[in-house]
Amino acid sequence: VHHPLDVVVQRHRRPLKIVERQKSYSQEVQRAGKWAHIWRIVGEYANFSIFDVESNDELHTLLSGLPLFSCMDIHVTPLATHPSDIKV
Amino acid sequence: VHHPLDVVVQRHRRPLKIVERQKSYSQEVQRAGKWAHIWRIVGEYANFSIFDVESNDELHTLLSGLPLFSCMDIHVTPLATHPSDIKV
Amino acid sequence: VHHPLDVVVQRHRRPLKIVERQKSYSQEVQRAGKWAHIWRIVGEYANFSIFDVESNDELHTLLSGLPLFSCMDIHVTPLATHPSDIKV
Amino acid sequence: VHHPLDVVVQRHRRPLKIVERQKSYSQEVQRAGKWAHIWRIVGEYANFSIFDVESNDELHTLLSGLPLFSCMDIHVTPLATHPSDIKV
Amino acid sequence: VHHPLDVVVQRHRRPLKIVERQKSYSQEVQRAGKWAHIWRIVGEYANFSIFDVESNDELHTLLSGLPLFSCMDIHVTPLATHPSDIKV
Amino acid sequence: VHHPLDVVVQRHRRPLKIVERQKSYSQEVQRAGKWAHIWRIVGEYANFSIFDVESNDELHTLLSGLPLFSCMDIHVTPLATHPSDIKV
Amino acid sequence: VHHPLDVVVQRHRRPLKIVERQKSYSQEVQRAGKWAHIWRIVGEYANFSIFDVESNDELHTLLSGLPLFSCMDIHVTPLATHPSDIKV
Amino acid sequence: VHHPLDVVVQRHRRPLKIVERQKSYSQEVQRAGKWAHIWRIVGEYANFSIFDVESNDELHTLLSGLPLFSCMDIHVTPLATHPSDIKV
Amino acid sequence: VHHPLDVVVQRHRRPLKIVERQKSYSQEVQRAGKWAHIWRIVGEYANFSIFDVESNDELHTLLSGLPLFSCMDIHVTPLATHPSDIKV
Amino acid sequence: VHHPLDVVVQRHRRPLKIVERQKSYSQEVQRAGKWAHIWRIVGEYANFSIFDVESNDELHTLLSGLPLFSCMDIHVTPLATHPSDIKV
Repeated sequence: VHHPLDVVVQRHRRPLKIVERQKSYSQEVQRAGKWAHIWRIVGEYANFSIFDVESNDELHTLLSGLPLFSCMDIHVTPLATHPSDIKV
Repeated sequence: VHHPLDVVVQRHRRPLKIVERQKSYSQEVQRAGKWAHIWRIVGEYANFSIFDVESNDELHTLLSGLPLFSCMDIHVTPLATHPSDIKV
Repeated sequence: VHHPLDVVVQRHRRPLKIVERQKSYSQEVQRAGKWAHIWRIVGEYANFSIFDVESNDELHTLLSGLPLFSCMDIHVTPLATHPSDIKV
Repeated sequence: VHHPLDVVVQRHRRPLKIVERQKSYSQEVQRAGKWAHIWRIVGEYANFSIFDVESNDELHTLLSGLPLFSCMDIHVTPLATHPSDIKV
Repeated sequence: VHHPLDVVVQRHRRPLKIVERQKSYSQEVQRAGKWAHIWRIVGEYANFSIFDVESNDELHTLLSGLPLFSCMDIHVTPLATHPSDIKV
Repeated sequence: VHHPLDVVVQRHRRPLKIVERQKSYSQEVQRAGKWAHIWRIVGEYANFSIFDVESNDELHTLLSGLPLFSCMDIHVTPLATHPSDIKV
Repeated sequence: VHHPLDVVVQRHRRPLKIVERQKSYSQEVQRAGKWAHIWRIVGEYANFSIFDVESNDELHTLLSGLPLFSCMDIHVTPLATHPSDIKV
Repeated sequence: VHHPLDVVVQRHRRPLKIVERQKSYSQEVQRAGKWAHIWRIVGEYANFSIFDVESNDELHTLLSGLPLFSCMDIHVTPLATHPSDIKV
Repeated sequence: VHHPLDVVVQRHRRPLKIVERQKSYSQEVQRAGKWAHIWRIVGEYANFSIFDVESNDELHTLLSGLPLFSCMDIHVTPLATHPSDIKV
Repeated sequence: VHHPLDVVVQRHRRPLKIVERQKSYSQEVQRAGKWAHIWRIVGEYANFSIFDVESNDELHTLLSGLPLFSCMDIHVTPLATHPSDIKV
């Protein structure tokens, strides 16, 4: 089984009432093992995330399902296994 | 079966003797159905390509196998199926 | 007959009611063989497209006919035949 | 007959002995009516040009034929007829 | 007599009712021989123009007289005669 | 105990003989639990890494100890705990 | 004890009534020894600040506590001790 | 006596009723010998200015006193005496 | 008589033996009244200059005559009379 | 007495033998009270400094006296007193 990994930076300046629904959605996808990591970028209303998905189509479906998707500025960088990674 | 699609822009200013090996390699990967499209960017020594691969790891293996890989400037944009595409 | 090929990246952040008309228009131009390819850029409300047209004037007419043209951010990169393309 | 028009900005910092051959080539293409306009960008070793060609392939052939092509930094912007142009 | 030439890229995303007055003004200045060329940038609501004026002051007066001046994003690149131009 | 987390993008175009020493050093720091994650950026000779360190001084000491440090282009983005992270 | 130092540039164009609360908050954090320096960037409604904090989490908590946080554009650059600093 | 010189580019897209007060203020500072030069950037609602002030604090006080300060985008470049200047 | 004014920023990192000839040339053009102002940009081997010339062609001739022209990075911004200038 | 404050970011990729002389010079200027602060930017061969000088001319003299000046990339941001600073 192959696991393409992707980084997503999501910026969103105007906090909305749907922030709570966004949080539940994110935690659901984390529990499903698809949203592998999430960090806050210090000083910004933005996060830095790692996704562990089967395909580009799956990743787009996950991201476009975010309650705040229409007001987020997302950029995806495709990642692969690194030859120096001791976990591989 | 899922087919993540990726775009690669490859810029290379200093033509080398290994250009011929680069061409054979590219055509081999095209014949294997992995390098779906390749176009010249008008006025530049650069191409615009679409890859049809199973995973990010496979794409990196294909690209890093290019004879000119070490002197190319490659940027990958992850693509997915578009809901308006009549071919899907 | 010559077939200049062009790439269009179209970004549009605010979904509108005319999204449906946009879809029909796009599929009509695809069926006419002018809009050769369309992909979703993963994580973005944007597409990556290839057009196969006779002239720059024809391409501008096609693009400016899009129902959402006035709120799209389009950038065109002119493409030509690549000498390594096995389909040529 | 359609006439796609294209702008080319060509930057080249290191003057070479083949500058003379570059000039003859440019004037030949001008006389053939393909290189419609050429201006110097003030203060820079760069030009701003308008080409009047039949296709993207023809334009790339013209540009890649420049004796200095391998050390030029060329960017092409596709142009079309403007509805306010009194010459059309 | 000297003729400094200048390029103007004018971007304007929100079409207005004064578009008609803008067109007449542009054609007047074209007929006066000051607005030497105008092209549409393919896929954009923007133009690419060449002006043939006596001074920077004259050019600013022409541009700031455009009915849509206050909502246009204009950038001027100063151009001079090119030594390879066969028309000089 | 606090664990500031940092992302490092390291680009390096000219492969050197000390690449092997670089790999050992990286794996040592990984085994020490300081270099939490490392991924290859697809199509590039670059990595994307997460460090788990006590202070900015410790991170700079780790990075400047890399055998290839003097020819790497490193950018650090400070990360913090995200309120939606289910692992916290 | 380690003291990671961080620089924050904060831009904010639209003065608000909460500017006074922002000032008290800033001076409180200064008195606590966490906001080590603050300067005005000449000609801009922006500041340039140095923070002296224990961790990235502490810094984000301080910054996100600013009354104007939601309309500020903050960028953090991680700083460490410099080997030429005579104060160390 | 030392005279630090500074350049200010001020961009302002939306003309306001206070434009007249802005003009008087500018001319007052010019008459005081502090605003040494002011030019219009051709085709833009922006100026290019040189200030001759005693300190950065004095310059910020002058600039923040502009009636349109809150809607201007100002960038200051610090200038010094040039060794080739024949006026020094 | 009209006096188009132009700003030139010239950057040059590698000091050469012809620096002395560059200085004489600059002072000659200053004495001729064409190179109206020259300042050093603080901390950089670069200048900020104002030229007072009759045309774009004259400016390019002056600049391309600089002994260091081939290794300078020059950018020209066209300037015009400002309506608030008390010297006009 | 006025004290304009300036920030200098200095990047330098190729370590040289004169690094030692650079360190002595920096510490001399620090002891003279002109180079108020110096920090290492984490992961980079670059520093972030604050200077406390009387004029732009004095700052340029200090910076251009650095043994490594000709191979450094310096950018100066002019700073002034901030109204919220409790030290003023």
